[in-house]
Amino acid sequence: MKANQIPLPINKLPKKWYNIAPDLPDPLPPPKEPESGPSRAMFLKKTMINECLKQESSKDRWIDIPEEIRELYIQAGRPRPLYRARRLEKFLGLKNVRLYYKREDLSPTGSHKVNTALAQAFFAAEEGKTTLVTETGAGQWGSALSYAAKLMGLSCVVFWVRAVYDWKMDRRTFMRLLGATVHPSPSKKTKIGRELLTKDTKHPGSLGIAVSEGLEYASLNEGCVYSLGSVLNHVLIHQSIIGLETIEQFKLADDTPDLIVGCLGGGSNFGGIALPFAGEMLRGNLECEFLAAQSESAPNLIKGEYRYDFGDVAEQTPLLKMFTLGHQTEMKPIRADGLRYHAAAPLVSALRNREIVKAVAYPADEKVVFDAAKVFFQTEGWLIAPESAYAVRAGIDEALVADRAGAKKVILMNISGHGFLDIEAYRDKLRL
Amino acid sequence: MKANQIPLPINKLPKKWYNIAPDLPDPLPPPKEPESGPSRAMFLKKTMINECLKQESSKDRWIDIPEEIRELYIQAGRPRPLYRARRLEKFLGLKNVRLYYKREDLSPTGSHKVNTALAQAFFAAEEGKTTLVTETGAGQWGSALSYAAKLMGLSCVVFWVRAVYDWKMDRRTFMRLLGATVHPSPSKKTKIGRELLTKDTKHPGSLGIAVSEGLEYASLNEGCVYSLGSVLNHVLIHQSIIGLETIEQFKLADDTPDLIVGCLGGGSNFGGIALPFAGEMLRGNLECEFLAAQSESAPNLIKGEYRYDFGDVAEQTPLLKMFTLGHQTEMKPIRADGLRYHAAAPLVSALRNREIVKAVAYPADEKVVFDAAKVFFQTEGWLIAPESAYAVRAGIDEALVADRAGAKKVILMNISGHGFLDIEAYRDKLRL
Repeated sequence: MKANQIPLPINKLPKKWYNIAPDLPDPLPPPKEPESGPSRAMFLKKTMINECLKQESSKDRWIDIPEEIRELYIQAGRPRPLYRARRLEKFLGLKNVRLYYKREDLSPTGSHKVNTALAQAFFAAEEGKTTLVTETGAGQWGSALSYAAKLMGLSCVVFWVRAVYDWKMDRRTFMRLLGATVHPSPSKKTKIGRELLTKDTKHPGSLGIAVSEGLEYASLNEGCVYSLGSVLNHVLIHQSIIGLETIEQFKLADDTPDLIVGCLGGGSNFGGIALPFAGEMLRGNLECEFLAAQSESAPNLIKGEYRYDFGDVAEQTPLLKMFTLGHQTEMKPIRADGLRYHAAAPLVSALRNREIVKAVAYPADEKVVFDAAKVFFQTEGWLIAPESAYAVRAGIDEALVADRAGAKKVILMNISGHGFLDIEAYRDKLRL
Repeated sequence: MKANQIPLPINKLPKKWYNIAPDLPDPLPPPKEPESGPSRAMFLKKTMINECLKQESSKDRWIDIPEEIRELYIQAGRPRPLYRARRLEKFLGLKNVRLYYKREDLSPTGSHKVNTALAQAFFAAEEGKTTLVTETGAGQWGSALSYAAKLMGLSCVVFWVRAVYDWKMDRRTFMRLLGATVHPSPSKKTKIGRELLTKDTKHPGSLGIAVSEGLEYASLNEGCVYSLGSVLNHVLIHQSIIGLETIEQFKLADDTPDLIVGCLGGGSNFGGIALPFAGEMLRGNLECEFLAAQSESAPNLIKGEYRYDFGDVAEQTPLLKMFTLGHQTEMKPIRADGLRYHAAAPLVSALRNREIVKAVAYPADEKVVFDAAKVFFQTEGWLIAPESAYAVRAGIDEALVADRAGAKKVILMNISGHGFLDIEAYRDKLRL
């Protein structure tokens, strides 16, 4: 029997996260203070989770996953299966190339974001905090943090860009069902929000404003900490669970990937699948290529410069060395909203700088990307998130090129999330 | 470590379906022709899948699952995990009762319906058919059949009650993404549809009309067969995969259920989880109780009579002996639309008649049911379908009663589907 599903037994769930920092060819450039204004590092120290900040600058290759977090991962359905995409291979007529995909779409909130949300919620509770505060754009991160907070018995406050809050009613209900307090941003809950609402009572908001409101709220309210869902080192460390599981699954499948493809906005999903494999390569155990699938709306690894920049529009973070389009760049709206970010995570940027990570960008009309998602749905049977569709598009393109050239190649794609809450986007893009 | 997830290894996926017919205390009353009109059995013989009709009257306890169907099951994510609901137990303060749930919500189309859809699509293809035809009400069955048809390389034609078709845009897009042709019913594709549209161009349709259109279409068009998603014996046989897996998982957990709870409309989900355990009991290997959770909108096992009745409003099926409210009974709309059916499957009805299956019905306003779903989401972390919420409500109620009485009891609930396409119902019912 051809079993296309490759599960990982629960007793093989990794016991440590992987931190690529000590394996990088060059030391990771540290965060820097901007030339003017207050110390951003000091501010973050007051508003963020201590354990996460410790991991942020850790030089340890392996970081223990507390037993309680492993239990939460199992509760959330980990380990997640790897699939051999035999049905897609057949549809594409591949003779030489084998395709695999990892299924983060099985997440309770629909995306890989829960991997770090659960870790952060656990550490916050350990540190005696009572409330997780964050901002959200598309709503995936807000959903994941609402979920993790509820499972750890914490409160959750989400500042959500009003322009999105107003129409994404299902995501809003989802977070509220999990007991989160969701404010459209700008809100009356903060000084900066009140000022903006005085000027314009229907201010549409922006991610920068939502970050600013969240940070202000977290810094002024008892028991609050601020949580971030991408870009930072500790987030990518938590996400390494994806790639670490997959390494074990390839052993079970008695195969080895030659190319790993993930979509990339800020880099948490790409880093999650790619960095554990990149570490194996840097330590001489594997030959492998890495490809980030981006949108031409935010091609930070392709058109960005490798320089120090803020992580947010509102300039509240320290400066991080990243491939960046500039933190105040306007980016065209796309359905794969999770890919719309001006810069790539410092850890991924460092690998890009050494040309270990390659990148490709697809047009902002997203037609070819949704076409790929439809092919994936019709062959493999899973409705995937618009963001994941970029990885599948790139995986298919690479497979066809390699196959025509007669190259034996094994390609791994990461499915970052499911598309059950994105069906309207499919209808719109494919005119169904 | 407390691992609440109990997966089943792929090599333990059952190789045979279970048919309870030969284990029933009384012989199953056979289908009957009505006193007037043409032979319904002859008509079905022409329009349905031969292998399914063969299984319909099979006296074999075990029916081989073709290797190809087992591969499709694995592709669709089977075996599905069983969970020990420790987090829910803790929330409820249970001291004596242990709760478990089986996760059919991990299905690619969001419900257990794929278990029979895949089998039917495979057999139809084996018999040289090219097109699966069906009706759908809420849209779950149409989605599952669209999926199965596409995976088997068949076409799919769905007649969908127009009143639902018009507003369930996401479900419609979902089916079309899978390549199905979806007609609002009444449609211009059939004689009966055209007649109704002549009288009223905006006729809202009904399930009975959709069945009639589907049967007419299937009987007149080359290569077509009609597929049914519930009630019939062969459907319950295919669904036995749910309970058979769960029996193996309880062995792994070194535990035994005392009570099995499932929601019940027509009976395919309830039969799927309950009948394999009921078979064990009837053969003397287990002591167990069975509880069907229903809506007061369609309490067929509670207020119905055990007598011969049609399976459909349009009187196109043979007469089946069932607990029925009457095939033309009007039922109040509820959000758990999958539970709105006038009768319970003959195999389940036979067990009800011997009082082996018990039943409970919840008010049609569904408040207590959605409250239970919210508790489940906040404790276990999974957003479940409105139908599944009935099973969880009944499971919680039974657990609290038993626990207060100090009774050691192990309760198993079946989660028939996920709620990602039902968030509006949550918003409406819980005023979020």
